Amino acid sequence: MEWKPFYNNNKEGKLYVIPLGGIGEIGKNMTLIQYKDEIISIDVGLTFPGEDMLGIDLVIPDFNYVIKNSSKLKGIVLTHGHEDHIGALPYLYKEIPADIPMYGSKLTLALAKEKFERFDENVKHNFKEVKGRDKVKIGKYFEAEFIKTTHSISDTFAIAIHTPIGTIVHTGDFKIDLTPINNESTDFFKLAELGEKGVLFLMSDSTNAEREGYTMSERSVGEALQQECEKAKGRIVVAAFASHIHRLQQIIEVATNLGRKIAIDGRSMIRVVELASRLGYLKIEDNVLIDLKSVDNYKDEEIVLLCTGTQGEPMAALSRIANRTHKHINIKEGDTVIISATPIPGNEKAVYKTINRLIKNNAEVIYEKISGIHVSGHGSQDELKLMLNLVKPKFFMPVHGEYKHLKKHKDMALAVGIPEENIIISENGLKIEITKNNAKISGKVPSGITLIDGLGIGDIGNIVLRDRQHLAQDGIVIVVITISKKDGEILAGPDIITRGFVYARESGDLIRGTESLIKEELSKYKKVTEWAVLKSAVRDITRGYLYEQTKRNPIILPIIMEV
Amino acid sequence: MEWKPFYNNNKEGKLYVIPLGGIGEIGKNMTLIQYKDEIISIDVGLTFPGEDMLGIDLVIPDFNYVIKNSSKLKGIVLTHGHEDHIGALPYLYKEIPADIPMYGSKLTLALAKEKFERFDENVKHNFKEVKGRDKVKIGKYFEAEFIKTTHSISDTFAIAIHTPIGTIVHTGDFKIDLTPINNESTDFFKLAELGEKGVLFLMSDSTNAEREGYTMSERSVGEALQQECEKAKGRIVVAAFASHIHRLQQIIEVATNLGRKIAIDGRSMIRVVELASRLGYLKIEDNVLIDLKSVDNYKDEEIVLLCTGTQGEPMAALSRIANRTHKHINIKEGDTVIISATPIPGNEKAVYKTINRLIKNNAEVIYEKISGIHVSGHGSQDELKLMLNLVKPKFFMPVHGEYKHLKKHKDMALAVGIPEENIIISENGLKIEITKNNAKISGKVPSGITLIDGLGIGDIGNIVLRDRQHLAQDGIVIVVITISKKDGEILAGPDIITRGFVYARESGDLIRGTESLIKEELSKYKKVTEWAVLKSAVRDITRGYLYEQTKRNPIILPIIMEV
Repeated sequence: MEWKPFYNNNKEGKLYVIPLGGIGEIGKNMTLIQYKDEIISIDVGLTFPGEDMLGIDLVIPDFNYVIKNSSKLKGIVLTHGHEDHIGALPYLYKEIPADIPMYGSKLTLALAKEKFERFDENVKHNFKEVKGRDKVKIGKYFEAEFIKTTHSISDTFAIAIHTPIGTIVHTGDFKIDLTPINNESTDFFKLAELGEKGVLFLMSDSTNAEREGYTMSERSVGEALQQECEKAKGRIVVAAFASHIHRLQQIIEVATNLGRKIAIDGRSMIRVVELASRLGYLKIEDNVLIDLKSVDNYKDEEIVLLCTGTQGEPMAALSRIANRTHKHINIKEGDTVIISATPIPGNEKAVYKTINRLIKNNAEVIYEKISGIHVSGHGSQDELKLMLNLVKPKFFMPVHGEYKHLKKHKDMALAVGIPEENIIISENGLKIEITKNNAKISGKVPSGITLIDGLGIGDIGNIVLRDRQHLAQDGIVIVVITISKKDGEILAGPDIITRGFVYARESGDLIRGTESLIKEELSKYKKVTEWAVLKSAVRDITRGYLYEQTKRNPIILPIIMEV
Repeated sequence: MEWKPFYNNNKEGKLYVIPLGGIGEIGKNMTLIQYKDEIISIDVGLTFPGEDMLGIDLVIPDFNYVIKNSSKLKGIVLTHGHEDHIGALPYLYKEIPADIPMYGSKLTLALAKEKFERFDENVKHNFKEVKGRDKVKIGKYFEAEFIKTTHSISDTFAIAIHTPIGTIVHTGDFKIDLTPINNESTDFFKLAELGEKGVLFLMSDSTNAEREGYTMSERSVGEALQQECEKAKGRIVVAAFASHIHRLQQIIEVATNLGRKIAIDGRSMIRVVELASRLGYLKIEDNVLIDLKSVDNYKDEEIVLLCTGTQGEPMAALSRIANRTHKHINIKEGDTVIISATPIPGNEKAVYKTINRLIKNNAEVIYEKISGIHVSGHGSQDELKLMLNLVKPKFFMPVHGEYKHLKKHKDMALAVGIPEENIIISENGLKIEITKNNAKISGKVPSGITLIDGLGIGDIGNIVLRDRQHLAQDGIVIVVITISKKDGEILAGPDIITRGFVYARESGDLIRGTESLIKEELSKYKKVTEWAVLKSAVRDITRGYLYEQTKRNPIILPIIMEV
């Protein structure tokens, strides 16, 4: 049966697209579509902290606009199961009604479920599983249609949102892999059919917009892996992203072909292998998996260890192996280590450190410079142009990328003939107002980042981060003075304590110098009536003296105790 | 006249090569050659701190071995003027006799002189300028011979040290540029002549040992620059390394060809352009340079701004331009920005931030992905093999590289036929003992890193860094209690102060909770006689409670004041 739009009422109106994350950045993808009193969200992702966000564990979008409008939120549609698309869901559901439905593929929802379980048992959810070509009505105005695509995780969708104004398409993350591992290719027909019927507004993944040509097929990695593993004479250690189930499948197949057993290490790897094979996304022959503890019961040439740690994360399995702090695997000559990923910008140094340590322990290390051992999950320029050709949108907004990626993606859109005035480069929080004939930025909503540190959600802000940066740079110098509650007489102090400032054995003269300057200052006070005056004098004296002596600027913290 | 070794005495003996930096790392290059009671050092470089070295400005080699043996140190020979080869000289001369001579090219010494001048006027030096093919006797046993090479700075040498045991060659940093900018090519004859006469031990630059083939000639950059600059319709901003004088020359020539004026910005850029043109390394036509302040007196298409900031350094000229905090240059549509360098590992994110900001301000940005706008100054695999073929050393030690680079370079050496047992992969501080027939690692000397923070040299160590990392992660919580000197009675407190821990407005309950737990503990003490017991109880209580409440682990600092 041909699909008929249910809103064929020709009534005019305005639609809003509001990205809360993923624009001008790689990560924390979240986009709202609002029509009248109804909102749906495409993805609710998180991102990892920048190096200036000291001590922060995770970063999620500012949810204030959604929370304030949670009565309007009719549903959440999920493109795929990566952290940057589903990772912030539990944080959002902590603040919104649990019955708001989430639509996603089986794998996406299974991964999301795990996140809820590990978060807080009081936070409930309402999952609705969908398959490719499924169409679901959400609220009065929206219908979401799920279209299979290919990416570095299974069960990935582009999503078309049919609205009273027209059809909005969001590609999610994608590449156009013509020979995917599970033979489940991009649903070209549905994308082209949408294009044929008319797409008003397209949002498309810009992650690889700087790369020319086509991204290699995931299948090519299997061939390269097979070659490298055939050459290996001893144990093989392969590090990969746990969520990259196609990659894991290929590693498992290569190992099985070569008659090797597979041990798994790394918490997320163990979890994903268990989950994906239970759900049928990962096929592992019987008797291939062995317990990590039993590795030494096999000959070296019978072993593949599949583990985490491609980004040089200090506690990941591969890092522990490289540092020789791993409980079961002691790296040695004859071992081959394959790092089946490239460093994410910012992780280069940590990854190189791991590689250097492995080589130093005489392992053969196969890493990024060796071509073929990894391919990207995101489409390059020609794939982006192909997507634009299939969907043929009237209006186009590049998403998922830093500004330089969005700009390049815009160039692709211009190249395929979309007029410049129909291309929007937006920012997180801007409202794009869409009518049948027009799309433009019009207003903004509260947006930004919420920092997660331990159990705290948003209790760390700029002041705390600035203090941490300051502490990290030059440490802290604490000056304690005790005065009498009765008459303000100075009873004791100054006592000076430092942390992160200077070696204790080097600090004697500095501390004594500071002390005598403060004592000199204190001698001017018969009694202390204005704490603030004393505090500020102590701070200035200490700061000036220490800077002059060391050219360092620690945090100076005067404490006045009253007894 | 043919050069005759002056030590033709056939007496046996042992020579030591002792690298103090540059092995297993990129940076702080320094290698000692010791024979009996005489030592010379090849280069005395610094490096920049890793991201775990919070607040550190610079890192220099541990000089203890040299200082202890400074009466043996007969001279220092310098390969070229980059920071990682000469940057630590003033720190060394602070500790050794000022009359120990330093040998280097005119440009190298001019750059070194600046370092001394900016360091401390009391630290003196003894410079000896040398030219290519110069030979100088150093001490009783050594003769140093300087051989021209090509690199990303002018006036670069490989150095042969003729010793009673045989000839040692150190390549310094090099590429083999067949069409260098100043037409001063590598002195192939001298390198080949050394090889012909017999080189006992070669140390060669491994920086690019992972790259196949040949590194492109610096001249190719000029052509790419010319093309990009011809396309530019408005102002052109070019960021480059200040020390890369050949690059600066090419930028200046392109600008001059196109009839543009050149303004210079960035402290080091201004300094190097002044110095290099004064010494004749940089040729600039009259009336081409203009004052930065007068840029607005010219049309956009008449301007090139040459500046620093290729690594996204926050205070560099290009970063200030990108952030719109530059005093004279407000970036705007029509401007073309060329970043003529690639990010050094670790700087990627900062560089991308700069690029994104420039693009956001509508500049056309030409950066690394556009080929030809930058080439490396270090030789790739085929150049390394060529060097090995020219010098034909009996023993070979790859230097200047992380372990992975050294290992690759070893593979090159094996490929050109050096037997594995004649190749040494060393570490900083290891002594390589060399006789006419043997080279092996034998013992070690004190080595490591000395951290520079502000004026302090080596007053920051692991404890301070660990504190800074801890402070950076979770901040500090200070608990002050005042007790009576007389009888140990608790007079005041606990007062709790935090920095970098949690937002003040969020911290009320946490502080109150901690206070009441500590008060409960204090009530157990009639009087405090054992400070240590109280301190440790306060620390444990506070840490346990705050971790339970927040899953964070700030530094807990109990302070007990006695009045």
